[in-house]
Amino acid sequence: MPQDKHTNRRLLLASRPHGAPTPANFHLESQHVPTPSQGEVLLRTVWLSLDPYMRGRMSDAPSYVPPVAVNEVMCGGTVSIVERSEHPDFAAGDWVLGYSGWQDFALSTGEDLVKLSGPVLKHPSWALGMLGMPGFTAYMGLLDIGNPQAGETVVVAAATGAVGSLVGQIAKLKGCHVVGIAGGAEKCRYAEEVLGFDRCLDHRDDNLAEQLARHCADGIDVYFESVGGKVFNAVLPLMNTKGRIPVCGLIADYNSTGASDGPDRLPQLQSAILRKRLRVEGFIINQDYGHRFDEFFRQMSKWVAEDRLVFREDIIDGLDNAPEAFIGMLQGKNFGKLVVRVAGDKPQ
Amino acid sequence: MPQDKHTNRRLLLASRPHGAPTPANFHLESQHVPTPSQGEVLLRTVWLSLDPYMRGRMSDAPSYVPPVAVNEVMCGGTVSIVERSEHPDFAAGDWVLGYSGWQDFALSTGEDLVKLSGPVLKHPSWALGMLGMPGFTAYMGLLDIGNPQAGETVVVAAATGAVGSLVGQIAKLKGCHVVGIAGGAEKCRYAEEVLGFDRCLDHRDDNLAEQLARHCADGIDVYFESVGGKVFNAVLPLMNTKGRIPVCGLIADYNSTGASDGPDRLPQLQSAILRKRLRVEGFIINQDYGHRFDEFFRQMSKWVAEDRLVFREDIIDGLDNAPEAFIGMLQGKNFGKLVVRVAGDKPQ
Repeated sequence: MPQDKHTNRRLLLASRPHGAPTPANFHLESQHVPTPSQGEVLLRTVWLSLDPYMRGRMSDAPSYVPPVAVNEVMCGGTVSIVERSEHPDFAAGDWVLGYSGWQDFALSTGEDLVKLSGPVLKHPSWALGMLGMPGFTAYMGLLDIGNPQAGETVVVAAATGAVGSLVGQIAKLKGCHVVGIAGGAEKCRYAEEVLGFDRCLDHRDDNLAEQLARHCADGIDVYFESVGGKVFNAVLPLMNTKGRIPVCGLIADYNSTGASDGPDRLPQLQSAILRKRLRVEGFIINQDYGHRFDEFFRQMSKWVAEDRLVFREDIIDGLDNAPEAFIGMLQGKNFGKLVVRVAGDKPQ
Repeated sequence: MPQDKHTNRRLLLASRPHGAPTPANFHLESQHVPTPSQGEVLLRTVWLSLDPYMRGRMSDAPSYVPPVAVNEVMCGGTVSIVERSEHPDFAAGDWVLGYSGWQDFALSTGEDLVKLSGPVLKHPSWALGMLGMPGFTAYMGLLDIGNPQAGETVVVAAATGAVGSLVGQIAKLKGCHVVGIAGGAEKCRYAEEVLGFDRCLDHRDDNLAEQLARHCADGIDVYFESVGGKVFNAVLPLMNTKGRIPVCGLIADYNSTGASDGPDRLPQLQSAILRKRLRVEGFIINQDYGHRFDEFFRQMSKWVAEDRLVFREDIIDGLDNAPEAFIGMLQGKNFGKLVVRVAGDKPQ
């Protein structure tokens, strides 16, 4: 179903999921396209980002930001074109990075918008990926918390995902030995052959822990955590003294519905933190590093211009396909940064 | 049994404990006092420090330092007097901080010795406490990892112990709201009335979690961890966003003999680290901060000279009583820094 200039399709949170989200948790409805008042712009969504953190916003468990309310539009980062402007700083045709959520059109007062310019205009969806939140997460988590030194071993989960693929490539640029972990032979081959990781292991293999030990012969100095679950279990015993674990996500646990079976491994983790003097630190990129975005953007744009980074996008066509794609992402079905092409990029 | 100038009593590790150590894990034997060769000094132990980390050295589980071998002298920090010197830098009668372990006499080449001078000579056992390893642990863990700001809430476990009592007092000097946790009404009263904590809670009370929530009305910004176990369980839900948890010990788990019963709370801890963006960091004071000892010693000596710190010692008389005192310490029976007065401080 294509975008239509008179209709604003909106994907609402219909109900809160219990465990894994299902299509019934979403509801598609249509409204008239709203009209901007003085000081507002009307945005037309071209690209919608789908990211694991959205699973958290669907729940009303305590979190660092309030959840999406039931019967409200699902939240999400977007790249949009200004359709109409009643705002002095914006003109029709401008490209902007914003937060319209899962819908075709949105009004904005401009405060939450970043006008796109420069190299990212060649590839506007990168503002949601390599040059946006996922890239920023990879860059700061790895370099500021992980602080990898040349010759050290860096392990990264979700190795072909938006964040993981960049973590591994940046670690390679810093001279590290990089071992990725991904789901399936195809992703692993891609991480080694295209992304240039030294090795990528399939977390579906029974002997993940053994393989990881073999390919991290000097132990692990930095583990970039976005997954949790059994990957973390395989990593922890291999962490070196003074190892660093930046934690940007725990996708394996997002659909968990209650306490896990025993034994209780919390004392083991505490003991590892003490004995190995680990630093384990969670971060939320915009809250913790918002003031350093320019530094990231400058360095990352330079690497992009020098063609030193590969960034694969998994592009889904059509807003109405967003729920299925999102549900699949939580199961690891995407291959690269998941983005929805909501519409073409020509003004309508 | 008093010290005798011809006999070197030595407490050996007789066997490795399974669970809590028992007297049978130690063996007392006597040897002739050794004679220093050229370049050596003969040390006579006056004070022996008993510290929780020694439990780790009794086991052969992987750790940051090798274990004590069976039939070797138990390790430990000591304050000694030089009895005889064949070393140009030391003279008979010098006081030194060293690592002679649980015995009356030891030889040293001087490399591992620090000559005591200045204010600590007024109270030499402080070199094992307030002005030594426990004080250094409290100072660096709290200030460098915990980084407490005036008005923040600091919670400290083992609140009347060697480390905890100093953590809380330093946090008060920094303008924090300080809540201690200790075992028993007497220790709690002492922490409030003598150490000046805002509140001290008894971990033996059934409603520790509720009490902690009530007395940390603004949440917890820094939790200084030396205990683990149920205290940690009560603390974690109250940690504030961007909270810091320096981990210097886990005494509640040291005697644990295997996996704990479920549910598995490891995912909960990971989730808290992510959602609250916590920094959890283990440290071993000498390895991680050895280069900053002078900074600590200068500041701490100043506070001591200004009478701004209280330091209680729990003094045990006689080397032969060390095993029982050590076993009791792991059960929380000591009240203050546990030290053994091995001998009087007059040269024999």
